[in-house]
Amino acid sequence: MDTAAPLSPTDRSTVRRGSKRARSDRADLYAVLDAGLIGHLGVQLGGAPVVLPTGYGRRGDTLYLHGSTGAATLRAAAASVPVCFTVTHLDGIVYARSAFHHSVNYRCAVVHGTARLLDDPAERLLGLEVLTEHLAPGSWSATRLPDRKELAATAVLALDLAEASVKIRTGPPGDDDRDLPAAGTPDPVWAGVLPLRTVAGEPEPCPRLPAGTPVPGRVRDRALSPSA
Amino acid sequence: MDTAAPLSPTDRSTVRRGSKRARSDRADLYAVLDAGLIGHLGVQLGGAPVVLPTGYGRRGDTLYLHGSTGAATLRAAAASVPVCFTVTHLDGIVYARSAFHHSVNYRCAVVHGTARLLDDPAERLLGLEVLTEHLAPGSWSATRLPDRKELAATAVLALDLAEASVKIRTGPPGDDDRDLPAAGTPDPVWAGVLPLRTVAGEPEPCPRLPAGTPVPGRVRDRALSPSA
Repeated sequence: MDTAAPLSPTDRSTVRRGSKRARSDRADLYAVLDAGLIGHLGVQLGGAPVVLPTGYGRRGDTLYLHGSTGAATLRAAAASVPVCFTVTHLDGIVYARSAFHHSVNYRCAVVHGTARLLDDPAERLLGLEVLTEHLAPGSWSATRLPDRKELAATAVLALDLAEASVKIRTGPPGDDDRDLPAAGTPDPVWAGVLPLRTVAGEPEPCPRLPAGTPVPGRVRDRALSPSA
Repeated sequence: MDTAAPLSPTDRSTVRRGSKRARSDRADLYAVLDAGLIGHLGVQLGGAPVVLPTGYGRRGDTLYLHGSTGAATLRAAAASVPVCFTVTHLDGIVYARSAFHHSVNYRCAVVHGTARLLDDPAERLLGLEVLTEHLAPGSWSATRLPDRKELAATAVLALDLAEASVKIRTGPPGDDDRDLPAAGTPDPVWAGVLPLRTVAGEPEPCPRLPAGTPVPGRVRDRALSPSA
């Protein structure tokens, strides 16, 4: 897909509420997806929606999802039914002068489509590599690769980034003028943003690791995105 | 509802995959919900699921959701159709000795039900108070309360916590014994957990706030949960 292709080509992926927060650049979609570690997969199951956290990875305009072949949502998502996959970063709490204008700063990508269950061995392995490297960069080459039994137990799905929307809120509260103090007078209500971000703590070695095993750079120097 | 009532009373809220990670205490459900700031609401809309980030607040066994009366997902969720509301905290990246056993530590609450659109003015106001205080404790009494026009523009929904499941993963990777080094020999692959948490940065005052306006304790001293 042309990376210059705009987003929101369809009715359901057109942002209507708060459309000033909508972004139409594919680069924004990539940035929001690449900065996350898990998304929320929605699928209709037995007449009701089910939303579950799901790992993912992106390569070009393909999103890879995976899970146990026994997971009902994964099985449902693999059955050529429409799914929705959403990745959200919470960037701050917006304190306003009115309860109504309280809000959050966030970045959110919503992908609509029909997932494809991969059966080609090479494509499945590629999908798992993309997924593993998204979660833990450097791990695919540093660890034992999946064997036949592990591959058989894993469903790998592909979702095209053909139909997606991105919404981003940044900046201060959008208070009404009527709630601002007269010029030169103090404001009785603090307003602003409490920024939030995700940070990594000290790596915790597996208890079965021999004492003194050094923490590799792929873990120690991991640069987290502003919000994971 | 009796707080001692166990979770998972129904087929769809019974955790099947990774059932050793399932929790059946209502206190676990409360803890996961109370530690979050946004959840993901799933609703079937035009024949396809839509999953959007949504603010919420809990009072007893009622979850309040809100949004613009113009938002299609909120309108759909208010129409007595089944919805799913999921709150997930990502607590760590689990590095294993095999690609297959890579995982994440997380806490996740999944609520199934049919949302009720509130029309009683007192209940709507209560819902908004719960929502505001969940997002920004102390803000309901410190800021201007919603006026008639703002109330009319806001849909407030209630979702009972009658049918829910909680799943929590903690601890080190679950490597196979075959991937461990022989006793007394070094392990060529580091394994363990990179813990993640959400932290608040320095409050950013609204540019329209007079210089020197002090940051109130409700913002400055805000204690974030381990992962927001």
